[in-house]
Amino acid sequence: MPRIDGKGEQFADPGIAGAVRIGARPDRRVPDNLVRAGFAVDGNEEAMPNRWRVEDAMRPGRGQLHGIELVKHPLGDEPGIGLAPGANLNGGDVVDIGCSREPRTGWHAASVAMAVNGPSGAVRIKVHSVPEHPQITVRSDMTVELVKSSASDADVVFAARVSTVGEQSMDDLDADPASAKGLIGYLMRERHGSPFEHNSMTFFVQAPIFVWREHMRHRIASYNEESGRYRELKPVFYVPNRERNVVQVGKTGSYEFLQGTEAQYDLIDASMRESCARSYAAYQEMLSAGIAREVARMVLPVSIYSSAYVTMNARALMNFLSLRRKSEGSQYPSYPQREIEMVAEAYESEWSRLMPITHAAFVAGGRVAP
Amino acid sequence: MPRIDGKGEQFADPGIAGAVRIGARPDRRVPDNLVRAGFAVDGNEEAMPNRWRVEDAMRPGRGQLHGIELVKHPLGDEPGIGLAPGANLNGGDVVDIGCSREPRTGWHAASVAMAVNGPSGAVRIKVHSVPEHPQITVRSDMTVELVKSSASDADVVFAARVSTVGEQSMDDLDADPASAKGLIGYLMRERHGSPFEHNSMTFFVQAPIFVWREHMRHRIASYNEESGRYRELKPVFYVPNRERNVVQVGKTGSYEFLQGTEAQYDLIDASMRESCARSYAAYQEMLSAGIAREVARMVLPVSIYSSAYVTMNARALMNFLSLRRKSEGSQYPSYPQREIEMVAEAYESEWSRLMPITHAAFVAGGRVAP
Amino acid sequence: MPRIDGKGEQFADPGIAGAVRIGARPDRRVPDNLVRAGFAVDGNEEAMPNRWRVEDAMRPGRGQLHGIELVKHPLGDEPGIGLAPGANLNGGDVVDIGCSREPRTGWHAASVAMAVNGPSGAVRIKVHSVPEHPQITVRSDMTVELVKSSASDADVVFAARVSTVGEQSMDDLDADPASAKGLIGYLMRERHGSPFEHNSMTFFVQAPIFVWREHMRHRIASYNEESGRYRELKPVFYVPNRERNVVQVGKTGSYEFLQGTEAQYDLIDASMRESCARSYAAYQEMLSAGIAREVARMVLPVSIYSSAYVTMNARALMNFLSLRRKSEGSQYPSYPQREIEMVAEAYESEWSRLMPITHAAFVAGGRVAP
Amino acid sequence: MPRIDGKGEQFADPGIAGAVRIGARPDRRVPDNLVRAGFAVDGNEEAMPNRWRVEDAMRPGRGQLHGIELVKHPLGDEPGIGLAPGANLNGGDVVDIGCSREPRTGWHAASVAMAVNGPSGAVRIKVHSVPEHPQITVRSDMTVELVKSSASDADVVFAARVSTVGEQSMDDLDADPASAKGLIGYLMRERHGSPFEHNSMTFFVQAPIFVWREHMRHRIASYNEESGRYRELKPVFYVPNRERNVVQVGKTGSYEFLQGTEAQYDLIDASMRESCARSYAAYQEMLSAGIAREVARMVLPVSIYSSAYVTMNARALMNFLSLRRKSEGSQYPSYPQREIEMVAEAYESEWSRLMPITHAAFVAGGRVAP
Repeated sequence: MPRIDGKGEQFADPGIAGAVRIGARPDRRVPDNLVRAGFAVDGNEEAMPNRWRVEDAMRPGRGQLHGIELVKHPLGDEPGIGLAPGANLNGGDVVDIGCSREPRTGWHAASVAMAVNGPSGAVRIKVHSVPEHPQITVRSDMTVELVKSSASDADVVFAARVSTVGEQSMDDLDADPASAKGLIGYLMRERHGSPFEHNSMTFFVQAPIFVWREHMRHRIASYNEESGRYRELKPVFYVPNRERNVVQVGKTGSYEFLQGTEAQYDLIDASMRESCARSYAAYQEMLSAGIAREVARMVLPVSIYSSAYVTMNARALMNFLSLRRKSEGSQYPSYPQREIEMVAEAYESEWSRLMPITHAAFVAGGRVAP
Repeated sequence: MPRIDGKGEQFADPGIAGAVRIGARPDRRVPDNLVRAGFAVDGNEEAMPNRWRVEDAMRPGRGQLHGIELVKHPLGDEPGIGLAPGANLNGGDVVDIGCSREPRTGWHAASVAMAVNGPSGAVRIKVHSVPEHPQITVRSDMTVELVKSSASDADVVFAARVSTVGEQSMDDLDADPASAKGLIGYLMRERHGSPFEHNSMTFFVQAPIFVWREHMRHRIASYNEESGRYRELKPVFYVPNRERNVVQVGKTGSYEFLQGTEAQYDLIDASMRESCARSYAAYQEMLSAGIAREVARMVLPVSIYSSAYVTMNARALMNFLSLRRKSEGSQYPSYPQREIEMVAEAYESEWSRLMPITHAAFVAGGRVAP
Repeated sequence: MPRIDGKGEQFADPGIAGAVRIGARPDRRVPDNLVRAGFAVDGNEEAMPNRWRVEDAMRPGRGQLHGIELVKHPLGDEPGIGLAPGANLNGGDVVDIGCSREPRTGWHAASVAMAVNGPSGAVRIKVHSVPEHPQITVRSDMTVELVKSSASDADVVFAARVSTVGEQSMDDLDADPASAKGLIGYLMRERHGSPFEHNSMTFFVQAPIFVWREHMRHRIASYNEESGRYRELKPVFYVPNRERNVVQVGKTGSYEFLQGTEAQYDLIDASMRESCARSYAAYQEMLSAGIAREVARMVLPVSIYSSAYVTMNARALMNFLSLRRKSEGSQYPSYPQREIEMVAEAYESEWSRLMPITHAAFVAGGRVAP
Repeated sequence: MPRIDGKGEQFADPGIAGAVRIGARPDRRVPDNLVRAGFAVDGNEEAMPNRWRVEDAMRPGRGQLHGIELVKHPLGDEPGIGLAPGANLNGGDVVDIGCSREPRTGWHAASVAMAVNGPSGAVRIKVHSVPEHPQITVRSDMTVELVKSSASDADVVFAARVSTVGEQSMDDLDADPASAKGLIGYLMRERHGSPFEHNSMTFFVQAPIFVWREHMRHRIASYNEESGRYRELKPVFYVPNRERNVVQVGKTGSYEFLQGTEAQYDLIDASMRESCARSYAAYQEMLSAGIAREVARMVLPVSIYSSAYVTMNARALMNFLSLRRKSEGSQYPSYPQREIEMVAEAYESEWSRLMPITHAAFVAGGRVAP
């Protein structure tokens, strides 16, 4: 019977409130060539994860142990095993192990029994917990907050008046509003765009990546976005609700969208929740295995939310709105994806409060960006 | 016993080489309130999918049949059932049904037996096949092809010389190359950027979405990208190979990346393949359920490849290279994600052939974009 | 002797406080074929211009009178003639006529005596006054006023922090200033530019056209400028003062400028004043002849002042400053023209007040725009 | 009588084919305290300029001689003096001196006699010739040459098709032209702009500065322009010809322009030629006085021609054309200044040859840039 010295390592798992001990010892209850490489956590039962991953199992000096055989491993009083006896366990495999309280130690523990063929020697294993059912959050809306702005109808007026006044035209700010309205309407109709640039709005936006993908095609804006390289992304995903038309008819470029059936909405909801949860579990698993965030994130779906600050001026915003909202009175109808339209609607709502005359002129002019 | 008239509908499934017949008929072998709503495909066995989704099951004039009970459905000689008898089947559910050859008809068929409570009546069902194990393609490289260009060192020279010559300076094109080299070096050192703009390169690039996300933050470029709204995306995913360092050390903003362990690469490979395949299956399932592409794609991971044309001039490209390559001699070191760096390397390779003097000056100047 | 009926027309001349009467009548003191087509202004002597232009002189029904001969025209007691007797006067010619008080009428008058060959008939002439010595204003400085802004160091901090925080990071605004300083310094050194874009500054600037020419090469800014098509430009011109080095040494692209001699400054002052005054007189003359502003302005020199609003964010401004100021500690020295540097200095002064930490980091980093 | 040692310096004057000697010597024919500081040129009479400027006259060790008195200076047989005897001459003053042939030396010479008060000593003078009547060139047209391009209708097609094809779509280049036409028309109508960006046109343009001023407000283009800091600008000026309507009617922003009278055109022609020639003479004078080009150029009018290379793609060009041409079928009429419209017409002519289908679609769509 090979002699096995347990030597454990593990990755830090911030979700566990205690130390993790890993040890390997001969198991009396299994055949001679098996050892139980167990690990135990000194913590309460709730904190004890029951999905663990065998990161690595090696015999120092002899290379890794691939395909070590797993056997049922009775632990304490109640076995609680999620492993098929006789399965081959590879590095990277995830095992579901019901943990239990070990009477002698008071620790909550789980163990993997390994069949080690060949001569005696130390076995080093690395394990870490894997969140079995990652709690994902599902949203069907967008966050759009105007966090700062320097934008008013007066900004359009003074910028335009310098053409004909030539002097500082800021005194005009509180001048005759009817005249300002006429001027702004004229600029909009004649597509004199530059006076609409001397203002600034900064929004904080949370939207799924597939929305950001479209948003960032707009080059006349400033962006700073949450980084999947610098931080672990939160499990918040977009799933359309039943107000979102999901069946597409019509021809390329001018699709119409119709209400789906209950079955379709059910499928979307179930399929997306399931798929996002699995993807996020894979992400978590890779992270917990010490893989860089920028690599692990590759499995995350484009429905995951990301946060960014977006700064635009009114001219850029009008261009955005002309392309990203579908409106009755549009001179040039557009067929945006609904989700970016939701962002556009929120932008428009904020903007129309800041610059009501400009907004009204934009609408009156058929929503053509000057 | 309720009388049931079968009336089938199905979605077109281009993967099946034959007609799909759907019918419902009383099943002699099941209790009175059950009917077998089967479907058969006239084709060879290989073409017969064995995952089917019950899109919809309704009794016309009486609304949808939710929660119809499924029973084991012996079909032909060998049942091949993947359904738990007695399970409730909802619209949208996917069932794994081994199909078999029906001796009497020669058709390959599968069927779902439905327990219908209540009065007799026609039952309309919609089924369509679901790819059980979507074949995904995995790549670890980027496609970068220079598809057209109008770019040479001479373009820099004539543009710069107009400053001092004031006339058409195109005659200089074939002039003294040493002088051209000196001029280009001077422009680069002194950061006179505009002469580097009078040229154009168009690349065809295939890269994962997470690369495009970074790429499109570069606003001085022109993009046209494959649309997940207009076409069904192909199941091609990026998975890093073992040359890609995957373990990150160092502090935020200037990470170093180290070689991973075999176990880590194994995990990445397995986890990403599994996750991408599942995500793509969910995508396919939603598509086959008639859900719009722009909705179904939300589950796809950022590792899926997307194709685009990118047009840039040399000045914009130098800015891109200064930020997206990590090079020894850089005045301002950058820490790009490896995958966008792969695109950058390919760009640089093409560009250095088109504009060798400019490229050499860029490198000599510490890779600072002018 | 031909009979001549005077029939006058003239353009409005806002500089003259009285009515302008134009009449043609036989002149007793000149030969038979001459008439005096005079004009008189009922005003005081100071208001009476003494440069007049014969816009047009025609005989209705017979076409224009080209080349009418002028003779010395004694008017009132003192002739005060600026015309060479016998000169041919064409439409468009300008004549300097000393006006005098006509004793009989009390009007101040000037007249042009025309020799009309051929049959009798009415003569219609158009005259208008020409400002002989236009009052020009000379300046040696630039006007730069910050008229509105939404810009603070905190804007950089929240925009950058979203990368790693992923949530609304506005709460950080009043957080630990030392940390903010460290973050901003890091962003500047590493050339992470985008966090410097979420702010906005609008300046009112008055500068000569040659400065605007350089300014507007900066494409990342918003401009609205006084229009020479929509308004008559004011006679305000830039003339360098003696603090402006005017002698250039060194080689192309890195000129040094040295103090000029007194003689050189004298020449600049005299030559520019003279040249600008003449150009402006030509402008005025064309305007008063009914020529469109957009045409008349073509003679105006690039030293004439023009007003504009300029809106930029801090990133664009840093790029501007890196190119338009010559500073000791610059990583990449620049050799701007002094006059745009004056604008840049004023920008920098305002900006450093709004964003002192960012400004200090910019200076510490060698004035390289991130 | 003070003893005066002549010691001459002068600036290089490339217009004079011989050496310039400057000397001061006592003049027998003038009072005791006068010397004649003359200069002579060994060349033919035609090459001898007759406008000279006294750059500087100083007595080494004693400061500059301001206000030296000039006297009539008989030279050789024929005096040919343009100076009022007894006038005070300051550094920087220009004197018209008819030169003549000096019988003894064979040199053509002019001289300035200076009355020097005070003790004896050497006098150093600097003179240089001034072009009295600068030869200016007048043009009424624009130069627009397409110097390089990579632009075809096929570029639009492949860029657009990647949306739906997802693969390299360059094979489509020679595909069905009718289909290409349909696609391009669709893109234009629906305002899908990005496919029009994957092309490039570089123009060499010579236009007056007032045209460049408008042109460079277009920020989506690349410019390299002749530099008035780096080179002496050529005396080529724009003067509108009689096909250019010069009288403006209508209200601000939508002016109509009408044909001018002969007198108006005469005035424009005469006034502009005169004004430009004078401005250019002042420019030359300052240059010849050693004043930096960037300073001297300030007097030059905005009608002086400047050369530049302009690179744009078709989308940017369509935006330019939509604003800078006045066309019947425009959805949004524009009222450009005629001269920039001349540039726009030339651009459009070249572009329509390169991309005829795109051009036709632009026109058919009401000349709205997508």
